[in-house]
Amino acid sequence: MKKYPRRSTKFISMRNLKFLIYEVFDVLALTKHDYYAQHNRKMFNMVLDAAMKLSAKLLYPVFEEMDRNPPEFIAGEVKVHPSVRELMKQYGEGGWIASTFPEAFDGEQLPLLVANCCNMMFSAANYSGSAYPGLTAGAARLITNFGNPELIDTYVANMLSGQWQGTMALTEPQAGSSLSDITTTAEPSGEGYYNIKGQKIFISAGDHDGVDNVIHLMLAKIPGGPPGVKGISLFVVPKYRFEGQGTPVFNDIVVSQIYHKMGYRGCPITELAMFQMMNEERVGVGLSAASIASAAYYAALAYAQERPQGRPILSKDPLSQQVAIVEHADVKRMLLFQRSVVEGSFSLLLQCSRYEDMLKLTKGEERETIELLLDLLTPVAKTYSSEMGILSTSQSIQCFGGYGYCEDFPVEQHFRDMRIHPIHEGTTGIQGMDLLGRKVIMKDGKALKLFGQTVRAAISAAREHEALKPYAALLDKSLKSLESITLHLVGVAAEKGTAVFLADATLYLELFSYLAIGWQWLLQAISVQKAMQSRLSKSESNFYQGKWFTFRYFFEYELPKAEGVIQRLKSEDALTVDMDPDFFND
Amino acid sequence: MKKYPRRSTKFISMRNLKFLIYEVFDVLALTKHDYYAQHNRKMFNMVLDAAMKLSAKLLYPVFEEMDRNPPEFIAGEVKVHPSVRELMKQYGEGGWIASTFPEAFDGEQLPLLVANCCNMMFSAANYSGSAYPGLTAGAARLITNFGNPELIDTYVANMLSGQWQGTMALTEPQAGSSLSDITTTAEPSGEGYYNIKGQKIFISAGDHDGVDNVIHLMLAKIPGGPPGVKGISLFVVPKYRFEGQGTPVFNDIVVSQIYHKMGYRGCPITELAMFQMMNEERVGVGLSAASIASAAYYAALAYAQERPQGRPILSKDPLSQQVAIVEHADVKRMLLFQRSVVEGSFSLLLQCSRYEDMLKLTKGEERETIELLLDLLTPVAKTYSSEMGILSTSQSIQCFGGYGYCEDFPVEQHFRDMRIHPIHEGTTGIQGMDLLGRKVIMKDGKALKLFGQTVRAAISAAREHEALKPYAALLDKSLKSLESITLHLVGVAAEKGTAVFLADATLYLELFSYLAIGWQWLLQAISVQKAMQSRLSKSESNFYQGKWFTFRYFFEYELPKAEGVIQRLKSEDALTVDMDPDFFND
Repeated sequence: MKKYPRRSTKFISMRNLKFLIYEVFDVLALTKHDYYAQHNRKMFNMVLDAAMKLSAKLLYPVFEEMDRNPPEFIAGEVKVHPSVRELMKQYGEGGWIASTFPEAFDGEQLPLLVANCCNMMFSAANYSGSAYPGLTAGAARLITNFGNPELIDTYVANMLSGQWQGTMALTEPQAGSSLSDITTTAEPSGEGYYNIKGQKIFISAGDHDGVDNVIHLMLAKIPGGPPGVKGISLFVVPKYRFEGQGTPVFNDIVVSQIYHKMGYRGCPITELAMFQMMNEERVGVGLSAASIASAAYYAALAYAQERPQGRPILSKDPLSQQVAIVEHADVKRMLLFQRSVVEGSFSLLLQCSRYEDMLKLTKGEERETIELLLDLLTPVAKTYSSEMGILSTSQSIQCFGGYGYCEDFPVEQHFRDMRIHPIHEGTTGIQGMDLLGRKVIMKDGKALKLFGQTVRAAISAAREHEALKPYAALLDKSLKSLESITLHLVGVAAEKGTAVFLADATLYLELFSYLAIGWQWLLQAISVQKAMQSRLSKSESNFYQGKWFTFRYFFEYELPKAEGVIQRLKSEDALTVDMDPDFFND
Repeated sequence: MKKYPRRSTKFISMRNLKFLIYEVFDVLALTKHDYYAQHNRKMFNMVLDAAMKLSAKLLYPVFEEMDRNPPEFIAGEVKVHPSVRELMKQYGEGGWIASTFPEAFDGEQLPLLVANCCNMMFSAANYSGSAYPGLTAGAARLITNFGNPELIDTYVANMLSGQWQGTMALTEPQAGSSLSDITTTAEPSGEGYYNIKGQKIFISAGDHDGVDNVIHLMLAKIPGGPPGVKGISLFVVPKYRFEGQGTPVFNDIVVSQIYHKMGYRGCPITELAMFQMMNEERVGVGLSAASIASAAYYAALAYAQERPQGRPILSKDPLSQQVAIVEHADVKRMLLFQRSVVEGSFSLLLQCSRYEDMLKLTKGEERETIELLLDLLTPVAKTYSSEMGILSTSQSIQCFGGYGYCEDFPVEQHFRDMRIHPIHEGTTGIQGMDLLGRKVIMKDGKALKLFGQTVRAAISAAREHEALKPYAALLDKSLKSLESITLHLVGVAAEKGTAVFLADATLYLELFSYLAIGWQWLLQAISVQKAMQSRLSKSESNFYQGKWFTFRYFFEYELPKAEGVIQRLKSEDALTVDMDPDFFND
């Protein structure tokens, strides 16, 4: 039997990323502003190429090895794969951890639009590996944004250089989704620092031997403060603190266990015996999920293009040659599904990144508009990418048949690595409540109104192209449904109370996702239509035709799923509120 | 922190199984026929209790251990967990492998309706463990149904006693879904046996040290036969054959590798260097999938009932006590989803089992009706249970939050064990083609007509109950949609050809599933309405109320999903047929 390569060489499409940043989101427009003026297309391309090289040479080769040799907890110490130290060193020295930081911190002021394309490559190549520098960048950004100069001086440089790991220490055994219930306390010592006591669980990269120090950004309550979330403060808690002339002193942070996980095995999740991030981290989770789905998709595609099985449906001759399975309509459907998830998610995530970049350039009402849109879209980008990522990697397995279930190919690991994403940084249920219970109704529904205007602008632009008119009409209809469902639910809130209003918040989020992703596909289709007006090389033509079919796939197969959700959201039967939990017993 | 039990004591609901066989499917009606006359309610209950005891004492305790210590391939031999030998012994001695066999083989002539309830318990307790006796029973049945007396004498007794393992050796490297392409040859030796040569892959329990012999039922082609599937015959190929006075002789079956799998790790899948089962095996896969989903559901339920997190949505006091998460509407929704999948699948699977039992009792037109319905429903029962099983176990993980992703609780294993089911015994794509391309159109659509009559009979019966009328109307509407979509597709076949007709066969199967499961839920709801007319104890009332809410859940949240599928199936855009596979390249 023909041996298939265990790994495809491709895990993400550079062509697609360039399409998104240059053709859909016009990253060069950002460089007209002072803050990004040092960059240009040539430099962006160099950065993207360097990121691809790093992904291919450093991360991708140890993808499986890090899974098969997960972190070990030996005598109180967490030992990780030896490649982690090398990786943190190269990320630090290459300026990758600092890339989006201001020049004041020796950063590159790289737009997130570009930096997140790099992060997509890193995560697609090896999600666990990419988590170490990613978490460090996130923690360092919290210190530079909110810390005083002393904290910045003490910690940031060594984090951005990859010598020290950063973490977020938020969850406690009794307080996961319910953050207000944390009990970790911070007692002022009277000497300029706090004594912190409590237990934190589920801390990614919470301790390991690939760095010289670990800096926890930790949530705790100062005694005497108000109850609930208002009494929570954020502390910088290093594994080693520095006394006098900089002598490192062990700071009494004891790792009590590491978790044995289904996937994401290349990175330790620890329990610490002794926080929640913002939009950027939630977008980051969505980004990781979509990137994993990308890698699984390209693995499935490579296999489908090589694996002969079956014949064209009209061929009756059992002795004729078998065709590659990519020829079968049902396999194309499965591949188009995956591609629609991957490229739809990437598009929405980069839309959020672009908004994030623009926050640096705008003020007043313009800035408020962007902030509101970003707030509204963040739970959507996080959840669509994570939840659909499970289905997408599952279809990647399905393309392989029985081989997909075996460790011979990487897709079973992608499926395992994926499953954490609808859980961490706020579960899907929490995202739904955040969207419907907070984002949609805040400021009298202003964010939703702005979103409607933004989508309608895309619909108008699409109507300039004859081929897009029917799709523009479909999206317009969905948008109206979303708006009328929202009004209906606000009525329910007034009439039947908050519990009934929020009971199906998760479904509302699902409905919102179809619309948001449909909007992104319409934006992409406008760029495709423009590009197809020129004469194209064979490979460029294949790319745009592929985009065009994937766009049609989304509108034909995915957007109609909104119908079922709409039907449910209109219903009067509040059965999940009414049902007595005892009815689960028998 | 409170320590939660790692395993719930419950993995399946005996109350639900009894509800299904006594109240919905009236198993006692079968005992009025001679073939089943030896049985009665008391005996069925004893069998069910014994099966539950065996599941709880023998299978459930080693569920995780068999996963963490998967089979090893050492010096050409497959070593399995030591409990496998004990398990095969107890299943053999207890008469479990032979339970449904005729008395002529020392079987119990147990109705499949009851036997499959036992199999559900076994699979829910430990899917890998249950596979060994299950595969043996399936292989032995093929020999008793199709083998000559010599084959029966030589093999069956030792298989039913659990001393010998049975397998199905079907797939080859170049022939998975495309069975006609097998190349294993069977040359007549001229001495009453065949010399078989070829390579078989993906053989569950294909070899192991928990038994004394392994009997493969193997597909091969006799040279000179017709090409394609018509030239394939089924052979009995033992690991050890018997010569002269019964001396065992090694039969040259070499195991070349075992597969390292994501789940289903307690059972070896081997490659043999040197076949497809029928309805029963496909129903068996669905049964295993739904049983795994059952175990994961009860694990999630137990956790949700104990785990405090958050407060009622109207409680503003952060100092008030947290409630168990089962109180939250969104968690109830997730649990109801799982329960609707588990109990909907079980119901359809037992419907198939009842039809199977009735085949033994009927002839002529009545028998043909049952055969057609069984043929039609088999791909549906297999696929709904397997595909929804992935989503159901995924929601079980979600109920646990971060803990669900860790090996501390069993649900991550259920999620991994589940993923094989949409692949083996015919992938979902193959089931879709089987349903639309064969079952629906055979005999001028007779099976579909009979199905329509059967569902309409349930709808009429439901209309006798005031509370069921709106649901009966919904199902009636869905049935009409299914019928009109089918007609539409038959028109497409005539106009645009088979390739376009079958392009969305998988979606047609999905649509059919919503309807078939809706039918089963309506049947259950009729029994619930009848039962609720009596005075009930608290626990009985809880059971029926739980059923009633799960039924409503299905009609409110799941059945509407048919809308999106219908919308797509009506579309004219045959994009998955039209798309050039080169468009996947860029």
